[in-house]
Amino acid sequence: MIDFQTDPGRYRHWRLRFDGPVAFLDMDVDPAGGLHAGYEMKLNSYDLGVDIELADAVQRLRFEHPEVGAVVIGSLNDRVFCAGANIGMLSVAPHPLKVNFCKFTNETRHAIEDATANSGQRYLTALKGNAAGGGYELALATDHIMLIDDGSSSVALPEVPLLGVLPGTGGLTRLIDKRHVRRDRADVFCTVEEGIKGKRALEWRLVDELVASSAFDETVRSRALEMATATDRPTTADGVELAPLQRELGEDRVAYSSLEVDIDRARRTATLTILGPEDDARNPGPAFWPLRLARELDDAILHLRVNELEIGTLIVRSAGDPVLVEGFDGLLGEHQGDWFLEEVVLYWKRLLKRVDATARTIICLVEPGSCFVGFLAELVLAADRSYMLDGTWPGENVEAGMMLTSSSTGLLPMANGLTRLETRFWGDDVGLNTAMNAFGHSIGATEAYEAGLVTDVMDDIDWEDELRVMLEERAGFSPDSLTGMEANLRFPGPETMETKIFGRLTAWQNWVFSRPNASGETGALRRYGTGLRPDYDQRRV
Amino acid sequence: MIDFQTDPGRYRHWRLRFDGPVAFLDMDVDPAGGLHAGYEMKLNSYDLGVDIELADAVQRLRFEHPEVGAVVIGSLNDRVFCAGANIGMLSVAPHPLKVNFCKFTNETRHAIEDATANSGQRYLTALKGNAAGGGYELALATDHIMLIDDGSSSVALPEVPLLGVLPGTGGLTRLIDKRHVRRDRADVFCTVEEGIKGKRALEWRLVDELVASSAFDETVRSRALEMATATDRPTTADGVELAPLQRELGEDRVAYSSLEVDIDRARRTATLTILGPEDDARNPGPAFWPLRLARELDDAILHLRVNELEIGTLIVRSAGDPVLVEGFDGLLGEHQGDWFLEEVVLYWKRLLKRVDATARTIICLVEPGSCFVGFLAELVLAADRSYMLDGTWPGENVEAGMMLTSSSTGLLPMANGLTRLETRFWGDDVGLNTAMNAFGHSIGATEAYEAGLVTDVMDDIDWEDELRVMLEERAGFSPDSLTGMEANLRFPGPETMETKIFGRLTAWQNWVFSRPNASGETGALRRYGTGLRPDYDQRRV
Repeated sequence: MIDFQTDPGRYRHWRLRFDGPVAFLDMDVDPAGGLHAGYEMKLNSYDLGVDIELADAVQRLRFEHPEVGAVVIGSLNDRVFCAGANIGMLSVAPHPLKVNFCKFTNETRHAIEDATANSGQRYLTALKGNAAGGGYELALATDHIMLIDDGSSSVALPEVPLLGVLPGTGGLTRLIDKRHVRRDRADVFCTVEEGIKGKRALEWRLVDELVASSAFDETVRSRALEMATATDRPTTADGVELAPLQRELGEDRVAYSSLEVDIDRARRTATLTILGPEDDARNPGPAFWPLRLARELDDAILHLRVNELEIGTLIVRSAGDPVLVEGFDGLLGEHQGDWFLEEVVLYWKRLLKRVDATARTIICLVEPGSCFVGFLAELVLAADRSYMLDGTWPGENVEAGMMLTSSSTGLLPMANGLTRLETRFWGDDVGLNTAMNAFGHSIGATEAYEAGLVTDVMDDIDWEDELRVMLEERAGFSPDSLTGMEANLRFPGPETMETKIFGRLTAWQNWVFSRPNASGETGALRRYGTGLRPDYDQRRV
Repeated sequence: MIDFQTDPGRYRHWRLRFDGPVAFLDMDVDPAGGLHAGYEMKLNSYDLGVDIELADAVQRLRFEHPEVGAVVIGSLNDRVFCAGANIGMLSVAPHPLKVNFCKFTNETRHAIEDATANSGQRYLTALKGNAAGGGYELALATDHIMLIDDGSSSVALPEVPLLGVLPGTGGLTRLIDKRHVRRDRADVFCTVEEGIKGKRALEWRLVDELVASSAFDETVRSRALEMATATDRPTTADGVELAPLQRELGEDRVAYSSLEVDIDRARRTATLTILGPEDDARNPGPAFWPLRLARELDDAILHLRVNELEIGTLIVRSAGDPVLVEGFDGLLGEHQGDWFLEEVVLYWKRLLKRVDATARTIICLVEPGSCFVGFLAELVLAADRSYMLDGTWPGENVEAGMMLTSSSTGLLPMANGLTRLETRFWGDDVGLNTAMNAFGHSIGATEAYEAGLVTDVMDDIDWEDELRVMLEERAGFSPDSLTGMEANLRFPGPETMETKIFGRLTAWQNWVFSRPNASGETGALRRYGTGLRPDYDQRRV
């Protein structure tokens, strides 16, 4: 099992140290620390395990270190900053794991960009040695790239000449959309195996600053200090430690403190039941219910993505007191000026984006006793389909309700920059207005259906049978066609750099990776390092 | 060889008839008229050959029939409007042809949308019987979908349940971005094999109008007449016949009247040499040089796409009198109020978009004697790389020049809605301003390079060797990685429905088509119609 939980005490590939308001995050990959057998991680190359530690560090810096205003990403290997994704891993890993690796890597890079943009924690790259492929992409995720001018250090995206796959795992989009590298120069850059160094790298916008060797460390330090002092991070606040998750892993079940995951292998479903808060305890800390739930749901989704590949449908339910949820939701809505609440909101934003980008069918069930209120109601909107019970369960008298609040009007935007409601009613202003009228009060099945918030409503007589038939039908469809269909339907309307990376580049990469020219016996990934040239099917597609 | 040239007298699959300002384009697919052996095109299903005729009809309606203001797309089969792409064809066609088929199909549907938006020729669909998959997509490309309310006629995207591939070949994007179908309803729609009919189809925005059987034909006719009378098409102008192209096809060469294509199989390149105008003859007609060149270049690119799959690099050159080109360019720039010039401009816009979407490396060479002026200079900007000779050829005294005109400032936008210059300098206003200063006069190599219009300049000593090395290197790269890289680098910045269809959906489809779950021995495409269920690898990617 691939575990996404770690902490700095267990890092094998990164060193984290602090110098006042500046954190230094140095890559130092353990060649023997690969996640799978069969490859060595030389030259600071990486696999998913390295990225799990990076994601953990980025997350902890936000919650545990409010005093940090700038983070310097560097390397403890002077000759190689980072050689990119490990080619042995790409060659042996099964296709679904490769794709999930790329997705998680990009989510982590977005987390870096989100920290810079929204948490006053700016990232810069201190680039000594060569940064190739995913290594340069890591630099692209930071706000400021400083390259040592030593006559040899360079940046490169050598995938096309060396590996026959797409450059980076999103790097192409960042190159032209974020750094505004001219497209024909980007074309040249992506075909130059040895990369580009010095003045030309600066002139072509591949780096932001070129620094003489003798002054490099000092200049990096002072640049980071400048950045750190310019941010609005609270300098005197106490951090909130991200204590180990409470988690029990069983064969077909994972139980957290506020979330239960039940796997039905025959139906290929996982039911995620969110447990509402036990009380209204609002003190900042790892036990704060919205933070605890976010961490647990995040862990569960990542776990299902990479460890339960054949579980094609996620059923999202909730059980709890809507009034308590409403209380927490109101607190998050008033996050302004409170760095901790702000971080919790930003975490929910990233988590919901992770849900949107998860290649599984997501079905949300709104039943009596559920608590889809405020930020939790976003899960109803994030689902591919949502169903609500019309009426009560036999012999009971509670009806299902849900409630939209200001959390759905801009607090938690999707990667396309819109709210989930705006996305849902893209091009349908009448529909959007109708939905907006359903805000601020608990609504039942009829109102939710008429407001277009749920796909369908069913009474207790139909509920079980109809859901069973629908889930069986879904399980019979081609997993690939579902992945493609859902990825497209979830993002109507405008695109952003972020959606382009996940929706466009990732799709191309998914294709290129699966082609014999890359992954076949005589393809470039298998032949790399053997001395044999790859044997390509030359037909252009 | 697949030939993209046809005319109504040779159509096997469509009937075109006229009723004043309304044209009726009826599908009537010849089951025995498939482009490849091994499948029968039952139930108005289609292959590339059917689409080639459709594209021809759409094109001829614009040029040959200025009096037509509305086009009704219908079917001569009362039970089936169109069953979509032929599954036998999808099952036997090689992957590159499948992908090119989908691309051309979408380009033709964009041509329909472009005629509606920009030529005053509105398209509507008269939908009797079932419209499934690509058949419904054809309807999606039109402006107004009228569905007969006969209790059985329906619209459907049944690819996920039946075929294990993505619905439509762009239909998903049109469904949510053009017709604004709510994403969860779109999800339901795409999983219902039998489709959706009647009131529900209307309520879900899948069609625009529901018409009783008894009144159907008459209502369609009057709706088309209303549309036709509301347009600004000239009612008294004479059409310009698209006479057969002058074309000589050789083994490694295609010679047209204003274009020569020379194939070098060893280097896997095709050199396209544009021949400038012989004179300044400006009368409207098929001999009008900008129209003739557009038709020839369009044919050459389509020919190379599907008949020369291993020719990975297109080298674009030109030879002619820049002053004559400037004259024609000026004429096109003053097209307002002249329907014929307007159509020629719109054709160049579509043609250049076709170049942008062509999965081959495009290298443009600006040499002494070339004539990249105005609209032809867009080819320099459309190329992945452009090179300009610095100085003269040995013993000669002419230098290379090029010239930007108002043709580059909005006349010929890319699919992303930007000019090629805006795309080139996306996020770099200083660069864009520098380039704008190079407008309106012939510029040499130094100025072109400094203005960022060409990738590099070389003198005559380096020219041949450097290009040879670059072309050899390019030919050694994985064709797949080049396709993915170029498709990404050509479109920095914003996205539109059109770029989403080509860049995002097509990429996903490319992937899904190539996966064993669709195309393998036990995949859905091979098993369709055999009575056996497909055998899926259930891992989600």
